[in-house]
Amino acid sequence: MALIVQKYGGSSVKDTERIKNVAKRVAAYRQKGDQIVVVVSAMGGGTDNLIRLASEINKQPSEREMDMLLATGEQATIALLAMALHSLDLEAVSLTGAQAGIITDEVHTKAKIKNISPREVHAMLDAENVVIVAGFQGMTPDGRITTLGRGGSDLTAIALASTLEADLCQIYTDVDGVFTADPNLVSDARKLNEISYDEMLELSSLGARVMQSRSVEFAKKFNVTFEVRSSLNNNPGTIVKEETDSMEGVVARGVSLDENQAKVTLVGVPDKPGMAARIFSALAKGAINVDMIVQNISHGSATPATDMSFTTDKPDLLKALKVIEGLNREIEFTEVISDEGIAKVSVVGVGMRTHSGIAAKVFETLAAGGINIEMISTSEIKISVVVESEKGEAATQQLHDAFFLSKS
Amino acid sequence: MALIVQKYGGSSVKDTERIKNVAKRVAAYRQKGDQIVVVVSAMGGGTDNLIRLASEINKQPSEREMDMLLATGEQATIALLAMALHSLDLEAVSLTGAQAGIITDEVHTKAKIKNISPREVHAMLDAENVVIVAGFQGMTPDGRITTLGRGGSDLTAIALASTLEADLCQIYTDVDGVFTADPNLVSDARKLNEISYDEMLELSSLGARVMQSRSVEFAKKFNVTFEVRSSLNNNPGTIVKEETDSMEGVVARGVSLDENQAKVTLVGVPDKPGMAARIFSALAKGAINVDMIVQNISHGSATPATDMSFTTDKPDLLKALKVIEGLNREIEFTEVISDEGIAKVSVVGVGMRTHSGIAAKVFETLAAGGINIEMISTSEIKISVVVESEKGEAATQQLHDAFFLSKS
Repeated sequence: MALIVQKYGGSSVKDTERIKNVAKRVAAYRQKGDQIVVVVSAMGGGTDNLIRLASEINKQPSEREMDMLLATGEQATIALLAMALHSLDLEAVSLTGAQAGIITDEVHTKAKIKNISPREVHAMLDAENVVIVAGFQGMTPDGRITTLGRGGSDLTAIALASTLEADLCQIYTDVDGVFTADPNLVSDARKLNEISYDEMLELSSLGARVMQSRSVEFAKKFNVTFEVRSSLNNNPGTIVKEETDSMEGVVARGVSLDENQAKVTLVGVPDKPGMAARIFSALAKGAINVDMIVQNISHGSATPATDMSFTTDKPDLLKALKVIEGLNREIEFTEVISDEGIAKVSVVGVGMRTHSGIAAKVFETLAAGGINIEMISTSEIKISVVVESEKGEAATQQLHDAFFLSKS
Repeated sequence: MALIVQKYGGSSVKDTERIKNVAKRVAAYRQKGDQIVVVVSAMGGGTDNLIRLASEINKQPSEREMDMLLATGEQATIALLAMALHSLDLEAVSLTGAQAGIITDEVHTKAKIKNISPREVHAMLDAENVVIVAGFQGMTPDGRITTLGRGGSDLTAIALASTLEADLCQIYTDVDGVFTADPNLVSDARKLNEISYDEMLELSSLGARVMQSRSVEFAKKFNVTFEVRSSLNNNPGTIVKEETDSMEGVVARGVSLDENQAKVTLVGVPDKPGMAARIFSALAKGAINVDMIVQNISHGSATPATDMSFTTDKPDLLKALKVIEGLNREIEFTEVISDEGIAKVSVVGVGMRTHSGIAAKVFETLAAGGINIEMISTSEIKISVVVESEKGEAATQQLHDAFFLSKS
């Protein structure tokens, strides 16, 4: 008898028909004799409606009260799913995050799970129930309702799987798993059977379509192996787990495209110690997320200066430019250039560590395709390039062909 | 500084505009320096939607899960009302029934309040907050969410007022208070300034439009004085309280009309001990609510027999007739007559105890109006008559004229 944690997101429970389908899937596992803990999100759309009501009342609603309000979403779903399982003659009980013992810190709307007291979940499992837990929510030690922020239901599932020492943790979504590239862009993208936590994290734009990176980080920290799979079919999904030796045999795990970034270049920054620190701590204070940072050698000899570029999320561009403007009094640079017309393409794989020539292959491929590279940044397991936004999809396709097609 | 408990029902919070209006009213009290505890129901309509979702999934949903589902309704309202109060620059926090320490028994969907642990409510009041409590819901001692059934939010308010020893308990509704008769039927009905618990209970059909009798019974038991008043204006309402000597000076407090009953007569029931017991315990076992019971002297001399009539709620009539049919094997009666075309008109007042001739005045009034009386039943503070249903409104108007108009 195995203990399985399954998580179903908002689109899998968006109406009563979908909830019944989830119940059938849960029943199929339960009838094999396994113990099942199901984590569900709010019904797709329900949360938006609650947010609309709140905004009609208060443009800046209290975060404590937003949590109180939004937590009703999952609470409704868990009750409905329990009823659907009862219709299939299965014993099932629902538990709110608080009832399931999910204790968080006090940071409303983006609380962190501190610990889980699984007494009630164990008791309900022992009494032969399917246990349905409200995702995305928890309770502070003194009893206030909190929510975990984006991707919170995945986090609930992974944290429960860790605490309960589950044999299997399945994250059901509306895609078949993690692919070598976005199948909407690259028609011959292949589903991966497995991927390491780090690769999943680096494949951010691929990964983000499936899961928020904080859930992956959490799984990595507590070493929870999980499977990302579709709630619309019975195909096996992608296993996300700790890196194994055999993974290193594969040079590239996937190619990702991020079209949501903008580039900022400070031209002629004095080449003195502390310049980069000042710029990026100012941006950090402004809560501006910076992704790639590139600085090359300086030029000029009397007053050596360099160009410094970084990328940020497009919605943060205006804020970033304001911060930079404010810096012009303490740092003299000649010019600021910003460009929203960029795309970031990345090739990711833990095998890069042990294989050389991957960067060269990336550059050769793009050169052969006539695509100009504007910025380059590399990590141990990733090579990212910035190209013109119109070339982003082509670059993704060409890199995917180069790394995957020849071997399939 | 007074402590005031206010309760707002579903129609008072049915949309965000109404919630803002409730917030303004709460603010007006709060700004006088009083401490306020607000009890709210689910947004009108919200509960119906949840029930519809449940019925799409399971025709006989588990009561535990219905409670889990329906409790989300008030939880959403309390959060939204807190946000609305914040918009008016008032400190406010919301608490679910469980968080407010409302401990109930384990009877899901119609739980009884066992006790209230007001620690959290007190702490929040001491921290200068308006405290908003979800009505209609509580928690079992082991942490399951329960709901209190019909009229449950009134019950929450009255129980909190009792536990907190509030100075004032205001039940806001969409009528101005309790009237001498239904103002929709009797245009010159007057609003009562005060009424005793027992009168309120006996004026069932008037009372039920305003409050469920269980809340009034609860208030009586714990001697909680409360005011029923409108959330649509600033008029004072009706104070419901323990009977006082001065109340006895008023013979009649009100006239009520109940058109929701049906009459059943068993003709020729053998006049032997135990007959009534058998009939009415069978009906009780069938969970059939019986209101009036009338039995007159027997007739016939060889085998004396009597006719026994009772009234029941119209929707229960078929069930009642089936129970009676089943009894025909053990009790020989000649015939069963049922009649849905009846109306029950009652005159209520604690003053009846000390004033004679009230019954006579009722019968004379109806006789003068040419209205035939089919059944009569009296209690210490009430005289009820059953008349043809088409005559119900006229009887109500005539009795109201007789008892109230001459004195106003």
